[in-house]
Amino acid sequence: MSKEAVRSRFTSVFPQLVEELKEILVSYKMPQEAIDWFVKNLDYNTPGGKLNRGLSVVDTYCILNKTTPTELSDEEYLKVSLLGWCVELLQAYFLVADDMMDQSKTRRGQPCWYLNEGVGNIAINDSFMLEGAIYILLKKHFRADKYYVDLLDLFHEVTFQTELGQLLDLVTADEYVVDLDKFSLEKHSFIVIFKTAYYSFYLPVALAMFMSGINSDEDLKQVRDVLIPLGEYFQVQDDFLDCFGTPEQIGKIGTDIKDNKCSWVVNQALLHATKEQRKILDDNYGKKDDASEQVCKDLFKELGIEKIYNDYEESVVGTLREKIEKIDESRGLKKEVLTSFLNKVYKRSK
Amino acid sequence: MSKEAVRSRFTSVFPQLVEELKEILVSYKMPQEAIDWFVKNLDYNTPGGKLNRGLSVVDTYCILNKTTPTELSDEEYLKVSLLGWCVELLQAYFLVADDMMDQSKTRRGQPCWYLNEGVGNIAINDSFMLEGAIYILLKKHFRADKYYVDLLDLFHEVTFQTELGQLLDLVTADEYVVDLDKFSLEKHSFIVIFKTAYYSFYLPVALAMFMSGINSDEDLKQVRDVLIPLGEYFQVQDDFLDCFGTPEQIGKIGTDIKDNKCSWVVNQALLHATKEQRKILDDNYGKKDDASEQVCKDLFKELGIEKIYNDYEESVVGTLREKIEKIDESRGLKKEVLTSFLNKVYKRSK
Repeated sequence: MSKEAVRSRFTSVFPQLVEELKEILVSYKMPQEAIDWFVKNLDYNTPGGKLNRGLSVVDTYCILNKTTPTELSDEEYLKVSLLGWCVELLQAYFLVADDMMDQSKTRRGQPCWYLNEGVGNIAINDSFMLEGAIYILLKKHFRADKYYVDLLDLFHEVTFQTELGQLLDLVTADEYVVDLDKFSLEKHSFIVIFKTAYYSFYLPVALAMFMSGINSDEDLKQVRDVLIPLGEYFQVQDDFLDCFGTPEQIGKIGTDIKDNKCSWVVNQALLHATKEQRKILDDNYGKKDDASEQVCKDLFKELGIEKIYNDYEESVVGTLREKIEKIDESRGLKKEVLTSFLNKVYKRSK
Repeated sequence: MSKEAVRSRFTSVFPQLVEELKEILVSYKMPQEAIDWFVKNLDYNTPGGKLNRGLSVVDTYCILNKTTPTELSDEEYLKVSLLGWCVELLQAYFLVADDMMDQSKTRRGQPCWYLNEGVGNIAINDSFMLEGAIYILLKKHFRADKYYVDLLDLFHEVTFQTELGQLLDLVTADEYVVDLDKFSLEKHSFIVIFKTAYYSFYLPVALAMFMSGINSDEDLKQVRDVLIPLGEYFQVQDDFLDCFGTPEQIGKIGTDIKDNKCSWVVNQALLHATKEQRKILDDNYGKKDDASEQVCKDLFKELGIEKIYNDYEESVVGTLREKIEKIDESRGLKKEVLTSFLNKVYKRSK
């Protein structure tokens, strides 16, 4: 089955979910202008990304149940893809808010939601409602399932973890107050694991596991022990490509250096820099001009960050392959869930 | 037992909850600066109000279980007061965000959280974390109770209802674009019920009922049918006092007219105004100067809003007393829960 068909079955579910959410507001006799606003909020902010997180709930479920996305009955497909869309709603909730906190201008090739005419700070409440939509949908479709409460606990836990990662990111890297002493590889690791890995890697797999009845603490730990380092590696890659990838490769122009980001690259540089090189970084990192950015890039090259990255990549991938090899499949978990994730991430260039 | 003793037992629980939340972050090995930030967020935004909502969970529980706040064992008191603090956390989550959306300056006699040095838009994530704290505490203390999932569903439902009310309020009353055609008593009623009544009146009582094992749909409907109109009446009072109360009475200077608020008072005026009086309102409502405000106040007097308010009050209170009289107590619900609420609201002047 083609990738397009898989994606298209997934995206075809979203309008139905919007319709269900709209019906709730109609049943409350909410005035039309507010219903229209909510629908626009959902449509503008939820689809439009790569949908990797949402799709990976369906993929994982199919691997665990030895089937394919096209073979699933409409009923079963609706439930599993709904879980995928809940991950996308969670991401939408974070992104609408993150864009305001970072004062970003564009997202997925369109103006950030808060920059739309008449939106502004109302976007804060809109982000709340994107999160709220998750629990309405879960209740409507899973309330009768014995794992319903597990889904709720999982969403709560992962949401809070992501917020913790965002908090540490915000207090560590003020865009305008450069202080490299605040950075460390340990903090970087914490930020990327909490801000990205839990919701992007662990959450989709854990959701698919609960729906498949594979719910023991041991199995959840087995996947977490692979997916969290894998998510960390994914973000390290992202940081590396932001600095060393070409715009054609990554589909955007990297801005981590100018934005004073606590990136893996600058943390490695700080680790290996001499006193003189550190001075160069202090003077140029986080500056908004091209010349300072180029000075940083040259220094990163001089410090051999590319080699350090390649060594890191080979080492982490090797460790992960070993861990996956040792996975206990006796309760129904499948190694393939994890290798499939690893293969999507390894050596990706965008 | 004195009111102070009741309040003091309630407030004494909060530091313990902060400690528990802090421990979660410590267990994640979160860097100290982020732990300190989270604790400050909790301390700054959660206590400091009147705590009526939190205290009413305890009050209701005591009425339902024929006991008093001082008689409860430490273990039982911790659980019920924790539910009360979760209502206060929910309110903190809304207020931190509302203050940003309304660009307010002070809250409870101190600068709004987002206006604190170094906070700014990070307050968005901070509001998320106040909400997140609710689910951490509920999981820790109620996961083993059979009504745990009911607590989660209730918090989700009421949270979303409040967000809906806030959305309608925001799209109805732009502080700077005055268009009285956007107002209506129907919208006012929707806004106050959704934005205030559900979380301030229904939520505390429903929480205490679940913990007391009084959880039938009939009983929840019985209390909702009283508490939602009561909450609406409470907010109508608030709107009335903002315009007609003295600063000494209400402890602040009313600004609804200048802020172009979709208040009960202006909606009543719109309902009773002649074409000429409507023109006066169009020209003066929502203006920032004292003279325009006074013109509106004089017009409200001329229209007899005070009499309309008094008639409304007597009528709604009469209806509520009748409804309470008919409450079916056979499953353990007590009329006293509702009369106690009504007596706190009736004829209050602040």
